[in-house]
Amino acid sequence: MNNLSYFIVFGLLASLSHAIELDFCVGDPSLPRGPEGYACKDPTSVTTDDFVYTGFRGERTISNVFGNNVTLAFSDAFPALNGLGISMARLDFGAGGVIPLHSHRTSEVLILAKGSIIAGFIDANNTAYYKRLQVGDVMVFPQAMLHFQINVGRTPATAFVSLNGANPALQLTTPSLFAGNLPADIAEQITLLSHEEVMRMKRMFGTA
Amino acid sequence: MNNLSYFIVFGLLASLSHAIELDFCVGDPSLPRGPEGYACKDPTSVTTDDFVYTGFRGERTISNVFGNNVTLAFSDAFPALNGLGISMARLDFGAGGVIPLHSHRTSEVLILAKGSIIAGFIDANNTAYYKRLQVGDVMVFPQAMLHFQINVGRTPATAFVSLNGANPALQLTTPSLFAGNLPADIAEQITLLSHEEVMRMKRMFGTA
Amino acid sequence: MNNLSYFIVFGLLASLSHAIELDFCVGDPSLPRGPEGYACKDPTSVTTDDFVYTGFRGERTISNVFGNNVTLAFSDAFPALNGLGISMARLDFGAGGVIPLHSHRTSEVLILAKGSIIAGFIDANNTAYYKRLQVGDVMVFPQAMLHFQINVGRTPATAFVSLNGANPALQLTTPSLFAGNLPADIAEQITLLSHEEVMRMKRMFGTA
Amino acid sequence: MNNLSYFIVFGLLASLSHAIELDFCVGDPSLPRGPEGYACKDPTSVTTDDFVYTGFRGERTISNVFGNNVTLAFSDAFPALNGLGISMARLDFGAGGVIPLHSHRTSEVLILAKGSIIAGFIDANNTAYYKRLQVGDVMVFPQAMLHFQINVGRTPATAFVSLNGANPALQLTTPSLFAGNLPADIAEQITLLSHEEVMRMKRMFGTA
Amino acid sequence: MNNLSYFIVFGLLASLSHAIELDFCVGDPSLPRGPEGYACKDPTSVTTDDFVYTGFRGERTISNVFGNNVTLAFSDAFPALNGLGISMARLDFGAGGVIPLHSHRTSEVLILAKGSIIAGFIDANNTAYYKRLQVGDVMVFPQAMLHFQINVGRTPATAFVSLNGANPALQLTTPSLFAGNLPADIAEQITLLSHEEVMRMKRMFGTA
Amino acid sequence: MNNLSYFIVFGLLASLSHAIELDFCVGDPSLPRGPEGYACKDPTSVTTDDFVYTGFRGERTISNVFGNNVTLAFSDAFPALNGLGISMARLDFGAGGVIPLHSHRTSEVLILAKGSIIAGFIDANNTAYYKRLQVGDVMVFPQAMLHFQINVGRTPATAFVSLNGANPALQLTTPSLFAGNLPADIAEQITLLSHEEVMRMKRMFGTA
Repeated sequence: MNNLSYFIVFGLLASLSHAIELDFCVGDPSLPRGPEGYACKDPTSVTTDDFVYTGFRGERTISNVFGNNVTLAFSDAFPALNGLGISMARLDFGAGGVIPLHSHRTSEVLILAKGSIIAGFIDANNTAYYKRLQVGDVMVFPQAMLHFQINVGRTPATAFVSLNGANPALQLTTPSLFAGNLPADIAEQITLLSHEEVMRMKRMFGTA
Repeated sequence: MNNLSYFIVFGLLASLSHAIELDFCVGDPSLPRGPEGYACKDPTSVTTDDFVYTGFRGERTISNVFGNNVTLAFSDAFPALNGLGISMARLDFGAGGVIPLHSHRTSEVLILAKGSIIAGFIDANNTAYYKRLQVGDVMVFPQAMLHFQINVGRTPATAFVSLNGANPALQLTTPSLFAGNLPADIAEQITLLSHEEVMRMKRMFGTA
Repeated sequence: MNNLSYFIVFGLLASLSHAIELDFCVGDPSLPRGPEGYACKDPTSVTTDDFVYTGFRGERTISNVFGNNVTLAFSDAFPALNGLGISMARLDFGAGGVIPLHSHRTSEVLILAKGSIIAGFIDANNTAYYKRLQVGDVMVFPQAMLHFQINVGRTPATAFVSLNGANPALQLTTPSLFAGNLPADIAEQITLLSHEEVMRMKRMFGTA
Repeated sequence: MNNLSYFIVFGLLASLSHAIELDFCVGDPSLPRGPEGYACKDPTSVTTDDFVYTGFRGERTISNVFGNNVTLAFSDAFPALNGLGISMARLDFGAGGVIPLHSHRTSEVLILAKGSIIAGFIDANNTAYYKRLQVGDVMVFPQAMLHFQINVGRTPATAFVSLNGANPALQLTTPSLFAGNLPADIAEQITLLSHEEVMRMKRMFGTA
Repeated sequence: MNNLSYFIVFGLLASLSHAIELDFCVGDPSLPRGPEGYACKDPTSVTTDDFVYTGFRGERTISNVFGNNVTLAFSDAFPALNGLGISMARLDFGAGGVIPLHSHRTSEVLILAKGSIIAGFIDANNTAYYKRLQVGDVMVFPQAMLHFQINVGRTPATAFVSLNGANPALQLTTPSLFAGNLPADIAEQITLLSHEEVMRMKRMFGTA
Repeated sequence: MNNLSYFIVFGLLASLSHAIELDFCVGDPSLPRGPEGYACKDPTSVTTDDFVYTGFRGERTISNVFGNNVTLAFSDAFPALNGLGISMARLDFGAGGVIPLHSHRTSEVLILAKGSIIAGFIDANNTAYYKRLQVGDVMVFPQAMLHFQINVGRTPATAFVSLNGANPALQLTTPSLFAGNLPADIAEQITLLSHEEVMRMKRMFGTA
């Protein structure tokens, strides 16, 4: 009989608070998106599978010019991250592969899982901090600072990164300048690069 | 005539800024909910009554096994709190009543209004901080730390708490383990409690 | 023997993390203060008494022109609040007593413990939301909005408020204008009040 | 051929992250609004014009009793600010014009572009900090503090302000008290102003 | 000669901004600590080694009763994380090893590097979300929710976690109740566990 | 006599709250600096001059290779901004002058005060948003996005920017790569620029 009255209080707590909706807010891309993320999927349809991302399983093939393969577990691919302020990515490098210069609006930690890479960032005083990492080493890249990773080993390498945002943009410096719609003359003026080099880069990206 | 030109400027301010919508954002549960709360009710339909919560009025009867009665003024019950980052709850204790071990994602302050209770929390070094409070005493429970309250008097007790979130989850440790769908064998492994005790608890909660 | 190895792991956790220092950060006013609060008191000297504030005990006498008595449990009086983003205050009203117009940089919730008051706030569109509260009623005052409380009963009244900041400034409109060093001519220009009224107010505050 | 594989990786990044939606979130007022701002306009329909606000162009006429003209570039007028936590306003003063006493939930910086004004704020200890500014001078008004600007020159003046919120309310003290629905007797009690002065002010605002 | 004037402007930027100090704030434990972290180490003495944590290298031996070994890369062990809001930990499990029930004030993501574990969390409605993970799988544990990991394989397992705080407390439920100074009678009252079980647990932790 | 009792209550408020210290926290660079800014200067020594920055007065000479002159009113130059989350900068351009490609950890608004410039930013999908601005136009540059300004007029130009951080780093892309200690071979690998161009750039910055 004690049990009966017991359930009453917890039923009450549940019905008053509906706390389940904000313990998590699995994103529903079909609903309007605000500056802080997606609206929440109906919590009654959320299952354990929402909280598990399996997209990092298996091997990667390397087939682009940078010699890398990047898999993002950001809130679009892993909607349970929505509103929780954290995300991950898997970085695979072929021999000599590179994650080229880029930045995010968040900070990032990287752990090297396989191989040997040089990782580094540059601060606002133009000082570069870079080092060759061993398997298991962790490096931190402070918020918004330009950073990069280079596979200096002769074999493939794999690293995992975590960022303290659910959807941290990844802004790649070279493609920003040459792979999109920025005119060549502006690219030259804002970088001091030569006209010839700008045009060579744009040809590489098919935008010349 | 001065009045006339005067109204023009304030009409202008109002029409440009629509600031009323974000001076407050009374939650509308019929609209999509995001990680930061509900979408706002149409501000033109907001009245003073939205900002006043009357659910703490009157006496409480104690009828559950813990000997408590908890009334939550979180954003589901009091939608004007939506987006404002603050909430309240009323805690009533029968003689010997207890608010069992629990935690929130926010910090909490408690003020004792009637009776005499022991209140306490435990930090991440396993140190418990607990004390018998008098009427009018305030205790703070830091963010996410496990805490509890026990009515050690022979008469009923009442306390009010405030939390710095509009919808702070209330995660009760014992029900988390035994009142839901967590299997008994997992509960044993992650607590080191005996099989017998786990089954006794699950029977108490009707989940054995 | 299992116990022995057990302690090793928890000793390890404790020594690596020193987490006790940030489970809470009881303010030490003798150390430098930053924009987010005081530096932390040595955690080894923290006791339960740090987390309990007893300054709301007992009765209050009303002896000022507003007919109120305000007791602040902000981080200066209750250093355990430092860094936790929450605080409290006790408001006592004589018959006809008033907490005059003021604002904070935080939001606030009020609960009426005794008597009957009118509480209200004004939004940025000049709309006032005010209501007579009964014992137990809660009202929310959104962040930075001007608000007030008036004891409309014939007997004393008491309310408790909680604010989502450890040290929310309390800026009283009338004293801001007339009790400090603001020159009378500026006060007139920025309020449109008459010279005579400004001077009458300044005489009341002894600053004429 | 290198180019081809190159595009594959960037196409992949784009399709996995949809990062464009949160690099910015231009507000769409036709969608539900939450406590953190409007839902985002479809990013495929965003153009450069969304990021440029032209409402500050040209001259202003001064025609209200305060002798000012205020143009707000807050998120309602400039929806690209939605979610970015920053905004601007243009302040024009006739000779002797005033931006009367007011506050915001954000901090503010002001730069004087033309003329000579006295700008100031008052802190929670009733200390006023005010000074005559020259063209090019910058003054900061801390979060939620009452502040004001007065054109003390004989010629028009113009200033620009920036606030660290996309939609910072602008709460004008005098209109809050006298231009809206706050009853005269409450206005008197919460300010200590005389009945006569309150009625004079309300007549000025047409609310007597 | 152009080069010369060029350096002048960048020298100027550097000397005006001293931005290096806040691009990062490597913690200096000898300086006062505030609620947001340690004061910053002199930036001129910071080197790349500050940004690289090598404490995850190598193998782990499992020797405690839980069958785990936890290595924390929080801001005390890895001071470069100070102020950056992110951290990591390495979890090693013997066969049958467990990371017992615990919570943090932050959210957490886990990636399984070796072996096979069941990971799960419980929400505030007592619903458990748990699943057996494969190598490479990622699971997210929302802020402040109780969670756990169990090595269900017959071989060792290793996982890495990242949390969105530089020093997220790790509050272990069972040790909180039984390994510290919480009296047995309070532990019983706030958990409903039997006296016998509480005493058995306290004996296990050497606190009976 | 009423006046006397009146002062007592405000003296009480002041002595209990010391609120002046957190209404503002003018930075004192001689004290330890934390991740959120400098420790506060003694508030009793703060004067109005602390809140006014005069460093934007007067004309600028343009003498560097970019044809610009940048004056930063960040918290190092204007310590009253410490902890308030806002700052400003003045940008002067000679004919053809450029603020080269750069980013910050904050968002930014720009207002054009003189001349005619093209301002723009690039998002994480490599789309550039750029436009020629007239005097008075405002453009917003979202958080962490690469952006630039170019004086396309034949006469000098001046703009003022505001950023929602007290000390937003200004990371210039080209100097990050070529003006500091980043080795040429790394610069090549992470940008795909040619060896010849990298060496030409390094010679321009005197680091070859």
